[in-house]
Amino acid sequence: MTQQNPLLSLQHQLGYLFTDVKLLRQALTHRSYAQNHYERLEFLGDGVLNCSIARCLYDQFKDIKEGELSRIRAHLVKQDTLVLIAQDLSVSKYLLLGEGEMKSGGLNRPSILADAVEAMIGAIFLEAGFDVAQSVVARLYAPLLKNIDPSSAGKDAKTQLQERLQGQKLPVPKYDIIEIQGAAHEQVFTVSCFIEALQVRTQGEGSTRRLAEQQAARLAMDVLEHSQQSSIKKRN
Amino acid sequence: MTQQNPLLSLQHQLGYLFTDVKLLRQALTHRSYAQNHYERLEFLGDGVLNCSIARCLYDQFKDIKEGELSRIRAHLVKQDTLVLIAQDLSVSKYLLLGEGEMKSGGLNRPSILADAVEAMIGAIFLEAGFDVAQSVVARLYAPLLKNIDPSSAGKDAKTQLQERLQGQKLPVPKYDIIEIQGAAHEQVFTVSCFIEALQVRTQGEGSTRRLAEQQAARLAMDVLEHSQQSSIKKRN
Repeated sequence: MTQQNPLLSLQHQLGYLFTDVKLLRQALTHRSYAQNHYERLEFLGDGVLNCSIARCLYDQFKDIKEGELSRIRAHLVKQDTLVLIAQDLSVSKYLLLGEGEMKSGGLNRPSILADAVEAMIGAIFLEAGFDVAQSVVARLYAPLLKNIDPSSAGKDAKTQLQERLQGQKLPVPKYDIIEIQGAAHEQVFTVSCFIEALQVRTQGEGSTRRLAEQQAARLAMDVLEHSQQSSIKKRN
Repeated sequence: MTQQNPLLSLQHQLGYLFTDVKLLRQALTHRSYAQNHYERLEFLGDGVLNCSIARCLYDQFKDIKEGELSRIRAHLVKQDTLVLIAQDLSVSKYLLLGEGEMKSGGLNRPSILADAVEAMIGAIFLEAGFDVAQSVVARLYAPLLKNIDPSSAGKDAKTQLQERLQGQKLPVPKYDIIEIQGAAHEQVFTVSCFIEALQVRTQGEGSTRRLAEQQAARLAMDVLEHSQQSSIKKRN
């Protein structure tokens, strides 16, 4: 990282060198820092990202139906996934935020990190066209695309757990509220997930019943995963 | 339209001649007609359409913020708008549907018409790349893009009416349910919209309260439009 071009290492990681580095700088500029901020680039980048991921999935999964492709795409372009990409690129090192945003933790705010990734993709599209932008997206997403399980990606934990049990011809799990604590707007729900046939019981917590159920289902999936692995080890 | 290439006139209207006409044929094939149907192409085309429209709007409206661009894009890519494009292209003349779909009116079903437009865009993208697909989208949308009002496109009638009255420093209109007719699942709501300051009163009907309010608001907008035009004529 030299004084002349402080964004050089970021560009190397993106695999694209900007002709006009001001465009990259704009993609990293939050509205709290300057008027020439990233929001319009983010709008553009969102479209480029969606289209690029659609193309990657279309090519990679030749036998998968439209509904499933849409689910996997939604999983890949959602904020949580973009934050992982932003962290890989150390985007927070390069973000330009106003003082107030800085103090309130903006450098690590998921929405800002995700927006900046989209804005950078939009900036590349604007300068170099779709094909170059798509190849950058494909490179950034390569590890995720390589390891993706098309049957589960983007499915919530309750759905995954239910499908897994149905695959073993077992009845669906039972969810029960164990406890609701706290005042009206800061309630914490504790929910149990019980799989009678396997005698597995887990508990999840969350600010809504739904979130607590999802956590309980995720923990139940972990238990099943773990018990399957130990039974495989025992057999070998 | 010759026997050799029955899809020639459609291709002329699209402004793109396919090298592989089978791909266009697939884009027009509903799942009820053959296994090699349009759904995966539609998934791809949806992404291409979104990205192309984003680019058109980004270039056309240099001073419009991201939130407004998103609203206008949503308006342009929604099913109703795609149906207009499909009708312009006479897509229903070329659709391949199974017998059951045909009998139940599939040739004019909005979802099928909209899907086929997206699938054709996806097919062009696959064969000729993004830039060609984008230029086809830009051509298909040219009349809509030319006449678009960025301040109102994609806003519902109630919002438009409220903003119009606020612009004249007038209070918001009042909506009242006048009547609910019919049995539980086929109710018809009649709602009035009253703008006291202008003594304008309209009535809308719909299967939900919301739809009835929207219709009443749309009619009120028509009344205001009409009275504004007559007062301009009187002045001249």
